[in-house]
Amino acid sequence: MSGIGPTAAPVLPIRGRLRPLGLTEVRATGGFWAERQSINAAATLPHIAHWLEREGWLRNFDLAAHGDLARDRRGREFSDSEVYKFLEAAAWEIGRNGDPDLEALFRAVVRRVAAAQHPDGYLNTRFGRPGQQPRWSDLEWGHELYCVGHLLQAAVARVRTRPDADDGLLDVARRAADQVCDTFGPDGLDGLCGHPEIETALVEFARATGDDRYLAQAALFVDRRGHGRLADVEFGREYFQDELPVRQATVLRGHAVRANYLAAGAVDVAVELKETSLLDAVRTQWENTVARRTYLTGGQGSRHQDEAFGGDWVLPPDRAYSETCGGVGSVMLAWRLLLADGDPRYADLIERTLFNVVSTSPSADGRSFFYTNTLHRREVGSLPDADRPSLRAAASLRAPWFEVSCCPTNVARTLASLTAYVATVDDEGLQLHQYLPGTVTHRRADGRALSVTVTTDYPYDGRIRVRIDTDDDRPWSLSVRVPGWADRGATLTVGGDTRPVGPGAVTERRIWRRGDELLLTLPMAPRFTYPDDRIDAVRGCVAVERGPLVFALESVDVPGVGSVDELRVDLGRPPRLVDGRVVVCCRRVRARDHDWPYRADGAGSAPPAGDRSDEVVPVTPDGVTPVTGPGFDEVALVEYHAWANRGPSTMRVWLPTVAG
Amino acid sequence: MSGIGPTAAPVLPIRGRLRPLGLTEVRATGGFWAERQSINAAATLPHIAHWLEREGWLRNFDLAAHGDLARDRRGREFSDSEVYKFLEAAAWEIGRNGDPDLEALFRAVVRRVAAAQHPDGYLNTRFGRPGQQPRWSDLEWGHELYCVGHLLQAAVARVRTRPDADDGLLDVARRAADQVCDTFGPDGLDGLCGHPEIETALVEFARATGDDRYLAQAALFVDRRGHGRLADVEFGREYFQDELPVRQATVLRGHAVRANYLAAGAVDVAVELKETSLLDAVRTQWENTVARRTYLTGGQGSRHQDEAFGGDWVLPPDRAYSETCGGVGSVMLAWRLLLADGDPRYADLIERTLFNVVSTSPSADGRSFFYTNTLHRREVGSLPDADRPSLRAAASLRAPWFEVSCCPTNVARTLASLTAYVATVDDEGLQLHQYLPGTVTHRRADGRALSVTVTTDYPYDGRIRVRIDTDDDRPWSLSVRVPGWADRGATLTVGGDTRPVGPGAVTERRIWRRGDELLLTLPMAPRFTYPDDRIDAVRGCVAVERGPLVFALESVDVPGVGSVDELRVDLGRPPRLVDGRVVVCCRRVRARDHDWPYRADGAGSAPPAGDRSDEVVPVTPDGVTPVTGPGFDEVALVEYHAWANRGPSTMRVWLPTVAG
Repeated sequence: MSGIGPTAAPVLPIRGRLRPLGLTEVRATGGFWAERQSINAAATLPHIAHWLEREGWLRNFDLAAHGDLARDRRGREFSDSEVYKFLEAAAWEIGRNGDPDLEALFRAVVRRVAAAQHPDGYLNTRFGRPGQQPRWSDLEWGHELYCVGHLLQAAVARVRTRPDADDGLLDVARRAADQVCDTFGPDGLDGLCGHPEIETALVEFARATGDDRYLAQAALFVDRRGHGRLADVEFGREYFQDELPVRQATVLRGHAVRANYLAAGAVDVAVELKETSLLDAVRTQWENTVARRTYLTGGQGSRHQDEAFGGDWVLPPDRAYSETCGGVGSVMLAWRLLLADGDPRYADLIERTLFNVVSTSPSADGRSFFYTNTLHRREVGSLPDADRPSLRAAASLRAPWFEVSCCPTNVARTLASLTAYVATVDDEGLQLHQYLPGTVTHRRADGRALSVTVTTDYPYDGRIRVRIDTDDDRPWSLSVRVPGWADRGATLTVGGDTRPVGPGAVTERRIWRRGDELLLTLPMAPRFTYPDDRIDAVRGCVAVERGPLVFALESVDVPGVGSVDELRVDLGRPPRLVDGRVVVCCRRVRARDHDWPYRADGAGSAPPAGDRSDEVVPVTPDGVTPVTGPGFDEVALVEYHAWANRGPSTMRVWLPTVAG
Repeated sequence: MSGIGPTAAPVLPIRGRLRPLGLTEVRATGGFWAERQSINAAATLPHIAHWLEREGWLRNFDLAAHGDLARDRRGREFSDSEVYKFLEAAAWEIGRNGDPDLEALFRAVVRRVAAAQHPDGYLNTRFGRPGQQPRWSDLEWGHELYCVGHLLQAAVARVRTRPDADDGLLDVARRAADQVCDTFGPDGLDGLCGHPEIETALVEFARATGDDRYLAQAALFVDRRGHGRLADVEFGREYFQDELPVRQATVLRGHAVRANYLAAGAVDVAVELKETSLLDAVRTQWENTVARRTYLTGGQGSRHQDEAFGGDWVLPPDRAYSETCGGVGSVMLAWRLLLADGDPRYADLIERTLFNVVSTSPSADGRSFFYTNTLHRREVGSLPDADRPSLRAAASLRAPWFEVSCCPTNVARTLASLTAYVATVDDEGLQLHQYLPGTVTHRRADGRALSVTVTTDYPYDGRIRVRIDTDDDRPWSLSVRVPGWADRGATLTVGGDTRPVGPGAVTERRIWRRGDELLLTLPMAPRFTYPDDRIDAVRGCVAVERGPLVFALESVDVPGVGSVDELRVDLGRPPRLVDGRVVVCCRRVRARDHDWPYRADGAGSAPPAGDRSDEVVPVTPDGVTPVTGPGFDEVALVEYHAWANRGPSTMRVWLPTVAG
């Protein structure tokens, strides 16, 4: 295997249906994502650097070089990885905009990391020094290989954005990777990491360095998992996917981040080694996971206790876990499958997850984060202390930092590299998977240039205009994705002709001339969305969506109402846009408490048809007027990703219904 | 405060509306509970003794006396308490049937415990010796006071059943209690225990010994809680009820066992010290908890992560936690409130919880136990290893023992003392709260004897016949409880007259003659039960109950069906009895999977009215014939407490409905 060119993108497979375009080829010029990338660069990255320093997680590296690490080390066993994820995020950001201050900070951090490396390449501040636990003595929980994985991903990001940087990071990573291969190779320790990550990282490192040794080690780690090499733990070996080999599993299970990272690494291995059956297995896992174990938002993982997937159809909105990092992992996996297979359904899930999980985590100012992304919050919480790491990552309140602070750095690296998930090429031409205003430029292997400009207000407007900026005498294909939710009403206009188009990839192959335009128009009417009847937890409820955005009812929009749980939606009146906001028609029911909340039917045949003692009262939301029968009012919803930016509130995505 | 006579009962308040009758006064002669008491004595108690020995939790006491406890101690920090709970259970059992072998075992265990006590009275195998953490150095998690509490309860049980035993347990307990008072008194350590238990135990110890010092210390502990003296933890101080004083709380919250134990102790303190406002506060907490935070089974606590109550209406059947010990704690609390107030609603909850939580935990053979009692099991589990403690207490599979094995001993002590929760007296006469075949005899303070025989097949038959066995020239009152679920159709027959009676206490005051009879007839037709509309997790579902028993659909009763989740109940046909089993009419829907389980409506107004691609297939249960339209069959349900006794299965209590 040889190295591929310097495309500035996170995933560069040697083969597959589609080839990614990098940060330098896809430029966002405004809109939803450019705004988030700006906040990420201006606020989130400095915020992370501040907390890494303040919590001593950077200083741990200094202590390793000259200090008493066993005595003074701070942070959890995986805190090194946050430093590496910061480096990865910074590398992408530098690659995107070349900020010299960030470049200087990056180099300074690399120096501190490098100084902590053992002579033999081992690098971890939690294990292996006098007074610490021995190296590799706690594979279940120690996260040593996981940390190396993130180190490698940082180095890969750097190599692909600043191949001539000469800052030493690649060398540090290579020595750490070599030490891993020396230790865990075919003749070495027959072990694997409790938290998958090293697998995908080693493949990417092989791709970036051209050294197949790392690929072979990744394949070995994938093969080793699933045979009970890790100890049984309270949550079962399913927690770290060690109960069943990857090739035999039919669905993602256990810890949601671990599951997605492992599957991503398995796809990487399968693609590089042409292991069709391994790729088939992961594809099946993904399909079943999306069909049965994924929240409307794209979020994955329903259980607080072990941050894990529940069984099929176990998707409670109430205390949905939907960890931000699970969303990041899901994007990683779906992107790899998209590159391998070309199926636009993968891009559908990426879009849904980016808009409704990844962009939900950070606050509007980019300085606090949801660790979990519940779909129902019943009680107004108190804001976490801004001045110390939150103990309660799972509280579904945004906090500036956490004792376990994996999510802020994962959001940062995803947003910094986001334009790398927008477009791909193949031998036929260009595919647009996500829509943002900007430019896509690419020089094909045969030297032909390809350039388009995208103009759109998506996701607030359904028109996506693609203008061709290059002339080419030979035909090429331009593909756009019609999202799965746009299953009626989407149209494509090219050369004055408009035709209806359905979900999937829509391809126009022709001789494109500079100035030619393609207009995709997606149906943007707000809509009710109904859950599969098997999702017990939301039976009798609807959600509201518009385009790729999930909406929520947030208590700050119904100031007269004590709890969003009192509202019942009138299905007879579809949601609509009023002054740019999505509104639904609700009735408010203030139910009477009973001594005991379970009641026999009256006549022995029919359910109690609404308790006559329940009180129907006005919703009286701010600035909204009654439009339907007694007790019904229109209530404005909020884009789910934007909730909890206006003070503490209650919120629900799934709204109980009344007969209209 | 002076000691009260030797009534062999767990709770002997100095005042209150009702006075309990003990094990020697209430005798079960057969039926549901006598059978469980027999299994408890014959199987569960020896089983517990075996595991306490095998896991080294008893040996810890030996090591304390002569060994290296710091090096060799086994078990979690609270393992001492299981030994004490075993002693308590054994004391009640000995009091009930006088088994000499159990008496010998009891004495042997007491000797081993006594040998581990420090000269100053401190007694704990986990703290305080060379090489161990210092005494009281981890009040949040150390459980030292909790363990002392269970030691006191064991001693109280012994004193009340064998007041002249002279086995040394009372002395051990007294010295431990004194050491606690010396350490944590008004001028001592300003601390409290992370797990309430010492509070109620100290009050009972004061009642049993007549020494008010213990009562004062209990009151101090109750007052200290709720002011943030314990450290903040991941779950918040709510976890151990230290975020809000007992007097200010309006509902139980946090860890369900802790919450109930604390509330029980608060009632004890309030009753003894005539603290009306404290009693009022707990009463309000109980009412709100029962109205909003209690499962149909009586189970409490919905969250796995922290074994805690969720918010109001958060009662997911799927992975309901409903810890067995939470049920035991709820019975403890409700019984204390019943004695204080006399309100039969407390006895309603006790009945529901005993039949559907406490009796659900042990297997039919009394040798394995549910730690949690879910109301919905989706996947057939594999049986836990019979030969080692289960790591997965929360799996809702019965296991012989657990790493944290609080539930088996709690079940054992509750079943051994169960007849003490059946009947009370007041100055007017006798109250029957629970129904079992047996005798109640009591000699009143003025020397008048009072004796009745109860004949019934309850809970399988609604007729409860109470025959008077004593003559008395003066009138006295006989009260029976009409349960809340019997809100239509109950009748009372006395002296040939039958009259309808409604829920609550029904009292007959008259001059009773030997041979007089009172017949209470409760309506035993199986019934659908509907949840409050605010319990999101079971919207659109019904449960089936008969009498006090909750029923469940278990997969072993529908052998042709892959998952109980495929069945939909026909509300048009009420459940009925067929050959002694409760059956409901179901349709089986084998739904088709979709790429994405959330779908827009078709016409923009109405929900998809059943997916035409879904397949309706025969239920074909064993031995049941179709009785209604195509696809409908009658399916036999199982008493919830008895589920999972016929091999691994799936199960659900709340059944989704279809229009009949």
